[in-house]
This record gives sequence, C-alpha cells and structure tokens, in this order.
Amino acid sequence: MERNRVIDLNADLGEGFGPWRMGDDDAMLQVVTSANVACGFHAGDPDIMAKTFALARENGVAVGAHVGFPDLAGFGRRPMAMTKAEIENAVAYQIGAAQALAALSGHRIRYVKAHGALANIAERDAGVADALARATRAVDASLTLLAIALSEQVHAGEGAGLNVAHEIFADRAYVDDGGLQPRGEAGAVITDGDAALARVNDMLAERALITITGKRLKTPIDSICVHGDTAHAVEMARRLRAGLEAQGFSLRAFIEGR
Amino acid sequence: MERNRVIDLNADLGEGFGPWRMGDDDAMLQVVTSANVACGFHAGDPDIMAKTFALARENGVAVGAHVGFPDLAGFGRRPMAMTKAEIENAVAYQIGAAQALAALSGHRIRYVKAHGALANIAERDAGVADALARATRAVDASLTLLAIALSEQVHAGEGAGLNVAHEIFADRAYVDDGGLQPRGEAGAVITDGDAALARVNDMLAERALITITGKRLKTPIDSICVHGDTAHAVEMARRLRAGLEAQGFSLRAFIEGR
Amino acid sequence: MERNRVIDLNADLGEGFGPWRMGDDDAMLQVVTSANVACGFHAGDPDIMAKTFALARENGVAVGAHVGFPDLAGFGRRPMAMTKAEIENAVAYQIGAAQALAALSGHRIRYVKAHGALANIAERDAGVADALARATRAVDASLTLLAIALSEQVHAGEGAGLNVAHEIFADRAYVDDGGLQPRGEAGAVITDGDAALARVNDMLAERALITITGKRLKTPIDSICVHGDTAHAVEMARRLRAGLEAQGFSLRAFIEGR
Amino acid sequence: MERNRVIDLNADLGEGFGPWRMGDDDAMLQVVTSANVACGFHAGDPDIMAKTFALARENGVAVGAHVGFPDLAGFGRRPMAMTKAEIENAVAYQIGAAQALAALSGHRIRYVKAHGALANIAERDAGVADALARATRAVDASLTLLAIALSEQVHAGEGAGLNVAHEIFADRAYVDDGGLQPRGEAGAVITDGDAALARVNDMLAERALITITGKRLKTPIDSICVHGDTAHAVEMARRLRAGLEAQGFSLRAFIEGR
Repeated sequence: MERNRVIDLNADLGEGFGPWRMGDDDAMLQVVTSANVACGFHAGDPDIMAKTFALARENGVAVGAHVGFPDLAGFGRRPMAMTKAEIENAVAYQIGAAQALAALSGHRIRYVKAHGALANIAERDAGVADALARATRAVDASLTLLAIALSEQVHAGEGAGLNVAHEIFADRAYVDDGGLQPRGEAGAVITDGDAALARVNDMLAERALITITGKRLKTPIDSICVHGDTAHAVEMARRLRAGLEAQGFSLRAFIEGR
Repeated sequence: MERNRVIDLNADLGEGFGPWRMGDDDAMLQVVTSANVACGFHAGDPDIMAKTFALARENGVAVGAHVGFPDLAGFGRRPMAMTKAEIENAVAYQIGAAQALAALSGHRIRYVKAHGALANIAERDAGVADALARATRAVDASLTLLAIALSEQVHAGEGAGLNVAHEIFADRAYVDDGGLQPRGEAGAVITDGDAALARVNDMLAERALITITGKRLKTPIDSICVHGDTAHAVEMARRLRAGLEAQGFSLRAFIEGR
Repeated sequence: MERNRVIDLNADLGEGFGPWRMGDDDAMLQVVTSANVACGFHAGDPDIMAKTFALARENGVAVGAHVGFPDLAGFGRRPMAMTKAEIENAVAYQIGAAQALAALSGHRIRYVKAHGALANIAERDAGVADALARATRAVDASLTLLAIALSEQVHAGEGAGLNVAHEIFADRAYVDDGGLQPRGEAGAVITDGDAALARVNDMLAERALITITGKRLKTPIDSICVHGDTAHAVEMARRLRAGLEAQGFSLRAFIEGR
Repeated sequence: MERNRVIDLNADLGEGFGPWRMGDDDAMLQVVTSANVACGFHAGDPDIMAKTFALARENGVAVGAHVGFPDLAGFGRRPMAMTKAEIENAVAYQIGAAQALAALSGHRIRYVKAHGALANIAERDAGVADALARATRAVDASLTLLAIALSEQVHAGEGAGLNVAHEIFADRAYVDDGGLQPRGEAGAVITDGDAALARVNDMLAERALITITGKRLKTPIDSICVHGDTAHAVEMARRLRAGLEAQGFSLRAFIEGR
C-alpha cells in the first residue's frame, strides 16, 4: 500500500538552444521530481545542459537523458527514416554526452527517455524500442528506461534487463489499445487542470490507463508526465502536485530506492 | 632504459561525416597504437564513431576522444571566440559521447586530445588549456590528457591531477619556444619519410624537441603524432613504425601499463 | 528529326561539404553538359558551390540547383516528414542560395532538380511534386524543372507552367509503372557501361522508357542522368558520351535554345 | 529640408529558429519601417523567413537580408576566423536565400545588413566590409547596403557602387572615433526611452553622431536601429516612433524613393 502512495512527476526541461529558451525551467524544477533533459539533437546544447543539470541538482530533482532525432529545426517531432543501428548509435551518443555534462555539474544521469517522434515510433515499433534499450544498456546498465506505459518501450526495456519505469500522461487521452490519441483530434489534449488531476487520480487508484471509451488497461504507474512547453505548463504541474499531495501522495523521483 | 624503448604512434581517425570519409582508417589502424577519434563537432558522427571504435578494438588500438570546436564546415580549424565555460562544456559533451559509443562498440576511451584550432589555442592559452583539463577530469579523472609536449596543455593537465602523455609531431618543425612553425611557412611540414624518421629518432634519443635553429628543449616523449589525412599519410606512418622498430623500439599505446 | 539528335548528360556535382569531397568534379565537368549542384542542405556549402559554379562556367556546363532535405548526416537520402509548406520553403531557400552563388561566380542557375529522398517522394507524391514546382516558379518562373520522366514531377512542373525537361537514368532499371526498381533489388543498378549505353540508345530511339519486362512507356527524353559518386562514374559517363556521339548525337545542355 | 523630415526605423526580426522564437515580431512590424530578417545562419529558417516576409509585406514594412556568421549556437555573436572569400560566399548565400523566400511571400529584398560579430568586424575591417559589399553587388547591384554610420561598411558600399544607407543606434553610446562603446561598459546601452529619443533627435538635428565626450561626427542619417530582442524593445520602438512623429518626421523605409 505504502508503495502506491509515492509518485514521480516528470517534465521535459533544458529545451532551449543557443540564444533561445523554451518554457520556465526554474519554475518547473520546483514542482517536478524528475527532469528529462534534451541532449543537443532535437534541443539543448552543452551550455544549457550544464545549467539545467546544475539547477536540477540544487533543486534535488533527478535527471534523465531525453534522447531524440537529430533535427533541431523540427524539434525532433518529424519522423526520420533512420535505421535501427543509426538510432542505437544516436541514442548512445546523447546519453554519453548527458552523463558527461551531468558529471561536470555534480549531478548524475539516472534514466533515459525518448522524445518526440522517436518516442512515438518506439511506442509501437519493437525494433526501434529495442535499439533504444540496447543503447541504454550498453552505455550504463544501471540506467532506468522511463517508458510509456503499455508500450513496446516497456517490453524492450525489460527484455534488455533494464529497470523500467512506467509513465502516464496527465494531459493526453488514451485510445483503447493504450496508445495516445493523436494530437490533432478533439479531446486529445486535456487543458483543464482539475480534469487532468481527476484522471490521474483515477488511473493511480485503479493502477490502469483509462481510455476514451472507459476501458481499464492494467499497468504499473511510476511517473506522471507533465508538459513543460505549453502556456499553462507550470500552473498545470503545480495543480497536479498539490492535488496529489492532498490525496496523500509523496512526490519523489522514481529512481530513488523504493 | 627499457622505459625509453617503448613508444606510441597516434593519428587522427574517424574524421568523416555522414556520407563523407577522410583518410584510410583501415590501413592506419594497422600501423598506429592510439587513435584520436573525432566526436561529432569538427568531424565524426555517431555511426562513424561506432565503426571506428569497433575497428580500433579489433586491431588492438587504444582510443581517445579527439575534441574540437563545433564547426563541421571549418573542420574545427577556424578559431571560434568561445568562452572558457563554453569550451569546458563542449569538451565534456564530446568526451561523454565518445565514451558511450566506445562502450557500445566494446571499447573504452582512455585519453583526450584537442584538435585543430582548439589544440592550437590550448597550446599557448593557459585558461583554455585549463578548461580542457577540467572538463576531462570532471568526466573521468582516470583519463589521460594527450598533450603537445612543452605546451600549456601539459601544465593544465598536471595541475588538474591528470595523467599527461607528451606528444611530438613527426612531420612538423618546431620554433625555439617549442611551438610549431606555422603551416604556411617554408619547412614547416616535413614530407620526406626518412627525414621525419631521423628527426623522431634524434628527439627520442635526446629526450628533447629539436627546433629549427637546433635548440634542444628537454621533454618526456610518450607518443608521436602522425597525420592521417594527407596523401602519403599511411606510407609515412608505416615508414616511421618500421624505422622505430628497426631501432629497437616497441610500439605500444602510451596508456598501457608502463 | 534533328531535334532528336541533341541530348543532355546531367550529373550531381559539388557534393562535398567543408573539408570533404565526393566524386571527381573536374573530370565530370569535362563530360557532362549539365551539373546538378548541391545547395547546402544535403551536401554543398557556399565555398564548394562557388567553386563548382565557376568551374562549370569555365567548362561551358549548364548548372541547376539540386535541392534536397536538410539532412547532411543522411546525405538527403532519408525521408523526412516535412509538410508541403516546409518543403516549398526549403526548396525556395536552396534555389535562391544557388542563384546568388552562381551570380557571384559569373554563372546562372537554369534549372532545378530534386535530390535523393525528396526526388523519390516527388516522383510519386503529387503534393510534394507541386511544392517543388511552386517554389521553383515563385523564385524564378523562367527556371526549367528537370523532372524524372513519367513521374509526378512532370505533371507538377507542367501544371505550374514551368518548362519541364524529362530525364532518364542510364544506370537504373525501370519497373512497369515507370518507377525505378529499388536499389536493393537484383539488376536495379546497371554497372556495365556498354549495357547502359545500349539501353540509353534504345530508349532514345524509341522515345520511351524500357522496363524490366520489356514494356515501352512513351516519353520525351531531354537528358540522361549519370551518377557522379560511384567508383566508375567518370568512366561510365565518358563511355556514354562517346557512344552517343558515335551515334550522331550532339551533347548539349537541355536548357539551351531548342 | 524636407529630405531631413523623413526617417526610417529598422529592427532585427525573424530571429527564431525551428520551434523557438525571439522578440515580438508582430508588434515590431507595426512600429518599424524596415525589417532586417535573419537568413538561417545565425538565426531564422526557411519557414520563419517566409512568415516574416509575408507579415512584413502585409504591414508595408521593407525587408532586408540580415546576414551573419554560420553559428546558430552562438547567435552569430562569436567572431569566427573565416577568410574574406568564405565571408563573401556566405553573405551571397544568405542574400539569395532571402530573395527567394521573399519572392515566395510576395515581397522583395531591398537591402543587406550585417549582423552581430560580422557587423562588428565589418565596422572596422575594410577587407571584411569589402567582402560584404562585393557579395551584395554580385547578387543584385540594386540592393542598398544598410551600413553603420561612419564605419568601413560605408566606404566599402560606396566603393562597390552600391546605394548606402547610414544607420545610427538609438540605444547605444558612441566613442569618439564613431565606434560603439563596448556592451560591457557602463553607459554603453541606453535603456531609457526618453533619453534615447532625445539623443536621436539631437543627432538628426545636427546630422552627426554625438559621442560620449560630446564630439559631433558629421554623417548622413537614413535609418535608426532599434533592437528587437530586449525586454522593452517594443515599448522603446513605439516611444521613438511617437517622439519622431511628434517632431514632424515621417517614418518611411529608406529604400523608398527619396
């Protein structure tokens, strides 16, 4: 029982590049317990990574390598026809770079999460999910794979012998096979904080994804993803955190000893 | 005495990018004992890095992270006005990426060497040399810094508590302060293999740089740099290796237990 | 009749980047009559473009903007999920850049050709072909679109009111719908110069693509594409040119007054 | 007299990249009469360029190519050791790309202005200023060079036979040789709108730069540069425009027939 009363909030941070910034990292680092930090391929550069890791350390926030396609202009959201070997190499490269900058900032990469189009493809494509997991294990077998609940990422991570953390999305609707409803469709994105909180509470209570038709898909839930780059991102994250704490949850990074 | 009869040959490898290649890495890996592998900033990409590390492992060649300015178009040869903090972050990033891809390829990064304009600046600028050494130590204090003999890189590496390996150039002339004669000047680059071998033998025998005026500048010598991207690179490297072996030297990576 | 005795040979040139080169541009510029010059997105940079345009001018070779996906690492051969508007903008950007560097080199861009994955997609996807044609017309309505014979590129170019030149491939097999046989398959690439010449002669004589089952697909033929980046590229191109001249053809750029 | 009552306000716009934005372009386009649009090297991408040109056209704002060093991460503010030929090619490339996207958006590039470190170097280095002017003239001799008043850019533009427009900075202090006081120094940047307006009015009235010691350096003044990326950029620009109009000035692009 106690085990269920602990939950993690994760968000994408460090998503600037060069002179540009995205989202309010300072504010988000006071709310979330895990930060997925961009590694220079879809966003992020060595300086932003160093600053984000240092700030996360100061705030006691765990950090992960947020790995994506090499496409700054498209923010890693455009599918690219890379081979599995190319993906494996690109993922390893990003994890290593993140580890080094975390070390330079006195912090430590504890997990890996896929970003954007790479995450979407690895949700359903077992081969790509395997490439992600293989690269992670090869670089550091003690890393956790933060995987989309009920996706191929989970199987790939388990198959590779990695610790897998299961994440749900606070603000995205699920279709009946456990996939995310495409962003373009009505109702796909939940913008009301209370609605998002209620959904999250239900899913945590039932230990299941709840789909748009009301189906329950059983899954462990270790972390809740909140988005960092939308207008009301900070507000939504604070609302979720406060609501979860009011329900008796302790917010804590999933990678800490549980 | 025995200690002096072991020497390392290092060369820059993995200097392609995407569809492009530079030099004959396969041939060079059969001659050199250490490979400085580009990390994606001035050359190299994750796929080329993975292949180069795998090939080096097969050939029993030690590998180092060859770190440079983020300037593919300029091959890292154009000075860029980066701050010391930016350089420190960029160096850490590249080392980490190299470590990860070496791990993926079953190999291990043992040393760090600066490339091109970054190397030239770190030869004389103590602050930049310190940034290079600090980044190296922060990422992995067991890494060796492969430093230009008698340069600020040596002091920076020693100051940071790193193992320092001292390298001389087989094919470049030295001016009297121990610096390299600028490439543009007559006699700056030695293209004759026998002349290069004779020079190297003299410097090894005297444990000193020999300058264009005949001055002897005492220095330890752990490694000889041969260039990999010129027309007769492989031929020159083979000539040097054969000549050194004929003199009784064992060719061995400087990072191996001596 | 006379009209048919003139033909153009085109090849992809200027496909280096920064310190890297691909193919033997000097040799090819003495064989071909039109050069498709990379514009910096999949290959090429301002310096290489300037040199290639200058060299083409000296050799009396017509030049076109060879436009591709923004993917240096993948050489523009990996499909990218760009929207039609993004493709239109990216194509316009590359044409304009090429026009400017041609002007700087005393030459002039006369046509546009799609490269790699963009060309393949625009072969069959009318929307992407339209984006290519729209961008071309918007930048300069006097530009010719060098289109793959019998592809959507032809329709798009004609629909946009552009001059369209129809090209066939000397070294690639066609399937029955007029598409290229995928590279991976047996027989897809013709490596024998005599076989390529015989094919080209037959297609020119019949004014038709000849498919792998022997079907004849009628099409105007204005240009023959020879590849510049393979081992025997120059030899193949010379063989073709000599063979065509022996048949009585004049080799002349398709954009010259005919 | 009438001639002096017309003045142009220019600002840097379109300085985003991919998913990132900088400044409030919509608001600035309602205040300025000329927009310096980034061309993809230090900022800007084809999509942002197309949108910015379209928006400028709708607002009746003239557009110029804002050309910089190829350094997105450094926003073109870090000096790069490019040769004059490399700079000439890079400038031509950017102008051409901008012309093409302006054409696609129904607008037209009327001038060229250097950005960041390239502008600073071309302020004092005659060779670099010449490269800038040569590239501009080669691409389109009818383009105006928007030059920093009393700088080498003016001489280079005139020497190349280009129309030259002379700009002053509303918010930057001048030292006695006409150069800008370095940003780091006290008083270098004027943040008070009324102070900036008073300065501009004085300089326009006296047709001279006014330096920090009160020296008057005679110069034509065609345009006033306001910065677009600072916190109060829009407010400052509005204040200047209103103040100038209150003084009887007509705000009009310098490239319109005067």
